[in-house]
Amino acid sequence: MGMERRGEGLRPGRTLMSTKPTYTLHYWPGIPGRGEYVRLAFEAAGEPYTDDMDVKTLGKLVMSPDVVGHPPHFAPPVLEFPAPASAKRAKTQAGQSVSGGGTQSVFISQTPAILAYLGPKLGLVGDVEGEEEAVREVRRAQVNQLVLTALDLSNEAHDVHHPVATSQYYEDQKDEAIRRAEDFRKNRIPKFFQHFEQVLSSNPAKSHRLVGSSTTTADLVLFQVLDGIQFAFPRRWAALEKSGKYPMLFEMKNSVAGEEKLKAYLASNRRQEYGMGLFRHYEELDADE
Amino acid sequence: MGMERRGEGLRPGRTLMSTKPTYTLHYWPGIPGRGEYVRLAFEAAGEPYTDDMDVKTLGKLVMSPDVVGHPPHFAPPVLEFPAPASAKRAKTQAGQSVSGGGTQSVFISQTPAILAYLGPKLGLVGDVEGEEEAVREVRRAQVNQLVLTALDLSNEAHDVHHPVATSQYYEDQKDEAIRRAEDFRKNRIPKFFQHFEQVLSSNPAKSHRLVGSSTTTADLVLFQVLDGIQFAFPRRWAALEKSGKYPMLFEMKNSVAGEEKLKAYLASNRRQEYGMGLFRHYEELDADE
Repeated sequence: MGMERRGEGLRPGRTLMSTKPTYTLHYWPGIPGRGEYVRLAFEAAGEPYTDDMDVKTLGKLVMSPDVVGHPPHFAPPVLEFPAPASAKRAKTQAGQSVSGGGTQSVFISQTPAILAYLGPKLGLVGDVEGEEEAVREVRRAQVNQLVLTALDLSNEAHDVHHPVATSQYYEDQKDEAIRRAEDFRKNRIPKFFQHFEQVLSSNPAKSHRLVGSSTTTADLVLFQVLDGIQFAFPRRWAALEKSGKYPMLFEMKNSVAGEEKLKAYLASNRRQEYGMGLFRHYEELDADE
Repeated sequence: MGMERRGEGLRPGRTLMSTKPTYTLHYWPGIPGRGEYVRLAFEAAGEPYTDDMDVKTLGKLVMSPDVVGHPPHFAPPVLEFPAPASAKRAKTQAGQSVSGGGTQSVFISQTPAILAYLGPKLGLVGDVEGEEEAVREVRRAQVNQLVLTALDLSNEAHDVHHPVATSQYYEDQKDEAIRRAEDFRKNRIPKFFQHFEQVLSSNPAKSHRLVGSSTTTADLVLFQVLDGIQFAFPRRWAALEKSGKYPMLFEMKNSVAGEEKLKAYLASNRRQEYGMGLFRHYEELDADE
């Protein structure tokens, strides 16, 4: 593939072909974290994206309406893309491009909002050709619902190691974490697993996917939450797999990981290792039951 | 207004005029809870809705794909409405109507998914006539983002009184709750208030609304979260109001409550009192700072 260079050999009026991807994902470096839910959507769809993990840029993006325009953002991940071209109104609310280029950018934060925006554009909401808009709207709402439930499980997995305050060290809330971890392992994980097993088994498409027969953002988020729980609670994970109670859930995880593009991504060095982020492994928080 | 009765005086082929609202909201009785975020959208828009608080029906709706079709639901609130009429595919995934009538229903759960679905239909996403679709999509994503951030604050307010396990009594996690409440009052509330003050002050429309100049679902959710926090933490609320640091936030709350339709709703007996739900007042969890 030839490399296009800006401003070289262009006839006046010709559209500038740029190699710069449309979307930039801004997220903390060093952990998959919540940024991974967005990253997986780009990877599964084969959509090029700029993966910005620059801490200085992130500092500028959060709580800074002077940089990002209106509305400002509470926390990463933040998605950046060019403001709709002919949209005066959007332009007044757009911010400065921080991913390079002179155009004005729009910024969206909150993982489920980013995924609900990107899903239809990346072909990750199960659209079927020729169907009417009302049907699509309902399916998008259902995919959104399942994304949100999977992210609730993600949040609870995080709160296990930070039950008192996210701003304090784990070591200073370890006793509370041990209590919360027991409830998470015994009650919460099985409740969520049972729900998603039911979603998979009641899907008329019998597809190892949550909705319809193609991969949606809900599958990608659930895959990542399950993968994170497997990392953080390996003993509990193994016991639940062995129990045989959630066969479709475990199959679904393997099936998503086996998709060609995702398989390549997961084996690449773009896939970051878990560490001290959303999903953490502490020996004392894990157990068979 | 005349009462229409089904099957009376109808000529064949005439469309049946029904007084039954399109939407039914299913939620627990006795508390505003998370159902209130959806209820406020109907009330603000003047959209008739059936407010179902029957515990037996709710029991049938949760974790029951045999009743609601695919996908099943993890928890209320659940929104029910008629399945798109000519949609074969949707019909195979629809469930039984539990709100009366013989038609098949579609069910959606997860507060942000319900609001993202209803927002455009109820005129609560700030659409401006004549603007292009790409601009609307971005604004909807921004409204969705702000709904999600306000609901994060709502979730944290809940977790203050249940930091260890939602399935256990408050009294059995009171020590942990006291620790968490201190962090919530001192760090989390101010951080969220600062963010929303910034959203309001950077809105180019200068409208006492979060996005544009008309009321969106984001305003309604934020209003309700603020109202809940005022109930649960009255001392902290008063101190923050007195501090003068968040003038636009407090003004916005009063401005939303003063809207004609909402004012009538808030004064009616349809508005339920806070109790032992999402927002709870415990003397020992509140303080000036």
